[in-house]
Amino acid sequence: MPIISIKGINMPESPIRKLVPFAETAKKAGKHVFHLNIGQPDIDSPKVAIDALKDIGRTVIEYSHSAGFESYREGLSKYYKKNGMDVNAEEIIITTGGSEALVFGFMTCFNPGDEVIIPEPFYANYNGFAQMAGINIVPVTASIEDGFALPPIEEFEKKITPKTKGIVICNPGNPTGYLYAQDELKKLAEIVKKKDLFLFADEVYREFCYDNNSPFSVLNLEGIEENVILIDSVSKRYSMCGARIGALITRNKEVLKTVLKFAQARLSPPTLAQIASEAALNTPDSYFTDVVNEYVERRNILVDGLNKIPGVICPKPKGAFYCIAQLPIDDADLFCKWLLEDFEYNGDTIMMAPASGFYATKGLGKTQVRLAYVLEKDALKKSVKCLEEALKIYPGRK
Amino acid sequence: MPIISIKGINMPESPIRKLVPFAETAKKAGKHVFHLNIGQPDIDSPKVAIDALKDIGRTVIEYSHSAGFESYREGLSKYYKKNGMDVNAEEIIITTGGSEALVFGFMTCFNPGDEVIIPEPFYANYNGFAQMAGINIVPVTASIEDGFALPPIEEFEKKITPKTKGIVICNPGNPTGYLYAQDELKKLAEIVKKKDLFLFADEVYREFCYDNNSPFSVLNLEGIEENVILIDSVSKRYSMCGARIGALITRNKEVLKTVLKFAQARLSPPTLAQIASEAALNTPDSYFTDVVNEYVERRNILVDGLNKIPGVICPKPKGAFYCIAQLPIDDADLFCKWLLEDFEYNGDTIMMAPASGFYATKGLGKTQVRLAYVLEKDALKKSVKCLEEALKIYPGRK
Ligand SMILES: Cc1ncc(COP(=O)(O)O)c(C=O)c1O
Ligand SMILES: Cc1ncc(COP(=O)(O)O)c(C=O)c1O
Repeated sequence: MPIISIKGINMPESPIRKLVPFAETAKKAGKHVFHLNIGQPDIDSPKVAIDALKDIGRTVIEYSHSAGFESYREGLSKYYKKNGMDVNAEEIIITTGGSEALVFGFMTCFNPGDEVIIPEPFYANYNGFAQMAGINIVPVTASIEDGFALPPIEEFEKKITPKTKGIVICNPGNPTGYLYAQDELKKLAEIVKKKDLFLFADEVYREFCYDNNSPFSVLNLEGIEENVILIDSVSKRYSMCGARIGALITRNKEVLKTVLKFAQARLSPPTLAQIASEAALNTPDSYFTDVVNEYVERRNILVDGLNKIPGVICPKPKGAFYCIAQLPIDDADLFCKWLLEDFEYNGDTIMMAPASGFYATKGLGKTQVRLAYVLEKDALKKSVKCLEEALKIYPGRK
Repeated sequence: MPIISIKGINMPESPIRKLVPFAETAKKAGKHVFHLNIGQPDIDSPKVAIDALKDIGRTVIEYSHSAGFESYREGLSKYYKKNGMDVNAEEIIITTGGSEALVFGFMTCFNPGDEVIIPEPFYANYNGFAQMAGINIVPVTASIEDGFALPPIEEFEKKITPKTKGIVICNPGNPTGYLYAQDELKKLAEIVKKKDLFLFADEVYREFCYDNNSPFSVLNLEGIEENVILIDSVSKRYSMCGARIGALITRNKEVLKTVLKFAQARLSPPTLAQIASEAALNTPDSYFTDVVNEYVERRNILVDGLNKIPGVICPKPKGAFYCIAQLPIDDADLFCKWLLEDFEYNGDTIMMAPASGFYATKGLGKTQVRLAYVLEKDALKKSVKCLEEALKIYPGRK
């Protein structure tokens, strides 16, 4: 039997999946499991997007241009302009989700063996994409005590070696919900410029900013126009995760030309999903107001509820729909498994993602969990109650 | 300005794209261009598939399981069984086109620096996928004189080094239209077994076999069950290229487990396209009878027409919808460009793909072109006429 590759063997498993078998067992045992572990919103996709599919006039589902429909890129350019980002259609390549944009971007900008610095905790699949591109992630640690603010720039500088080729940030952040302030980003821009690094910014949660905060895009950082690569996606914006439409945006022509070659090799992004995504550009503003209001209420229920539980600390997120909570326990992996296997409260239990998988530094996040507030308010209330009761009797309680 | 990666710089450009700017100029100059260069069929997608979208009941376009809908995998398993291939749902991972199946397969099975042997001419995007995985393609040459039959097994043996980890075939073949006979495949199986290699078989043109030939799948080769990786796609089968739904199929559990990790990193294959593809499983058999009849007529018009032109040789394809023709010219790159820039016949001209891009050996295919017979019969007749007239006056005629 032939041996599989080292890359394959080392491909990391997603931290939000390793508990899935235990959740399945719990369900089979008749428990109701609240899924706070994944970022799949229950919010409806915009009606205009679904209607565009119902009204589909095509009889052949053809390949699109490898960079995506021209009309869609034109429409997206208008969307960015409306959001204060000066992006032209030629600076956009439509990808199969933000995921593919990250893979093509990493492969275009970095050589195998190169290092990229990422504030941790970070979106765990960056590990997989780095693995695919053969690059190494060097973490700088953001701490829960600072509410996961950008670590001091000196921490980045300390990590820079001759192999450092880029910095990757996610703003608003998954898993922390932290929203970088303009001056934090400007400090980052200085070091990017000084060391001539690529700056990847994953802004897929742009629409989800709370408490009158608005997002500041890396595209508006001056003096590093050729360094910035923006990663975007319709997955969260329109609750269209299954569409698999994202985008890579840059003003760097060399990068665009090269990403297009990767895009051409795989022929085309999904056509049906582009039809839906193009239609979604006409989503009324009220959709977002409603959705943001809903998330604020959910966040308040979850985060305020968590902070009321003795021993639990959870910084209040300003964006996205995740939070990281520090729990009074021995080990989050064991606790999350125990919740599924050995606990129930009124027939309910909860599934959370142990946070260690979001850190690159071994040992960090061991007593933290990530929760997504993508469930209805009532389910979130019950989830908080479940957690509270569980912490009362968990044998590994500290 | 930061420097892009070597992988990016070396990413090959698709041979079917390099003439696109010249075609655009030709169109602007008022010429009608017959596109024989690309494999985008004009055939309607099955009505059942389009109707499934029109009837979409979902209000949230959610991520699917990373390996694809379970119901779709069950349905596909039935499709394979009906086609004489004993495949279970657990042996299938749904991918974003056959393209992604190839990338995940290569990354799972091969280490950077490994070699894979591929009979040339081959589907040009294998170069891009190999580049992404960091592997080297070692060609064995199939010759037009033999109608592009599988080269003798000794030719494969000669190319095997300690770095050789796999063989990749495409059957029925793009760009040759060659259909491997059962005994050719059995010979291949012997060497695969002897050297314990992975055997990738790209069978995306399975439905397109002509003259009462039927395809023999590598899944039915005995004794190499753990070595075989099948690549499949709905793109050509249902004329749903833009869906971006493919599959990787193997009985090798280690490979399946690892491919799933790549699939999980990118979250999910396209949901809307899975809905259409699952519905397409109910396409009536008459659809395929009609389509195959249509392709046979098209092939006959094109290939018989080509062979009647003095100096042109074109083996008759037994499958897929491409052929390679040898032309009495100096250089196919120059000729194809000349056709777009300097030639017209009754206002028409044709666009073909120079075949050199389908060979890995430098210098081969220099006087050959690849043609796709994906246009209507009348357009093909006119295309043949165009080519005939062009060859009469082309300055580089030999
Ligand atoms: C921070 C972040 N980036 C990228 C993605 C990838 O999303 P997609 O590939 O669906 O666009 C996700 C999905 O959860 C995410 O949370
Ligand atoms: C031989 C072969 N394999 C794979 C593909 C990739 O197809 P897709 O990614 O659309 O499934 C093609 C497309 O033309 C092809 O010709």
